Amino acid sequence: MSVDLHDYIASVPDFPEKGIIFRDISPLMADGEAYREATDQIAAYAQDKGVDMIVGPEARGFIVGCPVAYKLGLGFAPARKKGKLPRPTVSASYGLEYGQSTLYLHKDAIKPGQKVLVTDDLLATGGTIAATIQLVEDLGGIVVGTAFLIELKDLGGREKIKDYDMLALLQY
Amino acid sequence: MSVDLHDYIASVPDFPEKGIIFRDISPLMADGEAYREATDQIAAYAQDKGVDMIVGPEARGFIVGCPVAYKLGLGFAPARKKGKLPRPTVSASYGLEYGQSTLYLHKDAIKPGQKVLVTDDLLATGGTIAATIQLVEDLGGIVVGTAFLIELKDLGGREKIKDYDMLALLQY
Repeated sequence: MSVDLHDYIASVPDFPEKGIIFRDISPLMADGEAYREATDQIAAYAQDKGVDMIVGPEARGFIVGCPVAYKLGLGFAPARKKGKLPRPTVSASYGLEYGQSTLYLHKDAIKPGQKVLVTDDLLATGGTIAATIQLVEDLGGIVVGTAFLIELKDLGGREKIKDYDMLALLQY
Repeated sequence: MSVDLHDYIASVPDFPEKGIIFRDISPLMADGEAYREATDQIAAYAQDKGVDMIVGPEARGFIVGCPVAYKLGLGFAPARKKGKLPRPTVSASYGLEYGQSTLYLHKDAIKPGQKVLVTDDLLATGGTIAATIQLVEDLGGIVVGTAFLIELKDLGGREKIKDYDMLALLQY
């Protein structure tokens, strides 16, 4: 590997609140070589899994998944927040620190039996990715893998999605 | 061109409110061949303009811009809503039907003199894209082009960004 992706993550203390170190992927995306390297690694994983379709939650899941879809000549389906998708949807809710949030996926986004890779920038508690997986499975898709730029190891996300194969390019 | 991209836009009446026809790009993104064709057309335009960097507003601007960045080996910088970017930003506000919204860009996202392509899925009134252009210019970037999957011709967006070169793959 010609670039060390760790060099392209900005660690920002006390964001979004005191005591949290935010791992910011924007320097990685802003560097053409690093962004391509990360995409190529995830695309190689997806190809190995025989993926037919990429799904990612808004908004950073798009930044990770869309170039992988392009590289492999596959489609991309966005999992979105309320009010964003105009046609019939399925929905899945997940807990946040306070209250809950809901993600939606168009009902025609996935055909039954399609092999799906779910992408996001970061695996933390796993709530967002578990909801996205549920949406895909509600439509009859098969989640053959999940891929992240970063795994935050202490937050339990890997345990939450332990029934699924997982790739994380970087760990903190 | 092997695919007619018009065939991959879903026209949804009365969304998000009565009387509006929403042009939904999700069937285009969901089809690997159509998504690749659209990306390749925008990438050819960007290459012709000598683009160094791609910038797009959340969230559909990412879906359009990220695979273009990948194809050309360039970086991508997201223009985001409030509270999403952890490091120092510039901001630009723009009018909505009711009230206004603000977009943010990391101060280090663009280096002075960089040639930037701004991408979004759809040009309507042009408010979002004008704000994104302002962010790039505030950082000393040069907007050498703007690219959209769709232009809604009756909403005045083209006039609003008339000082900039523009590519729209489809018009309604």
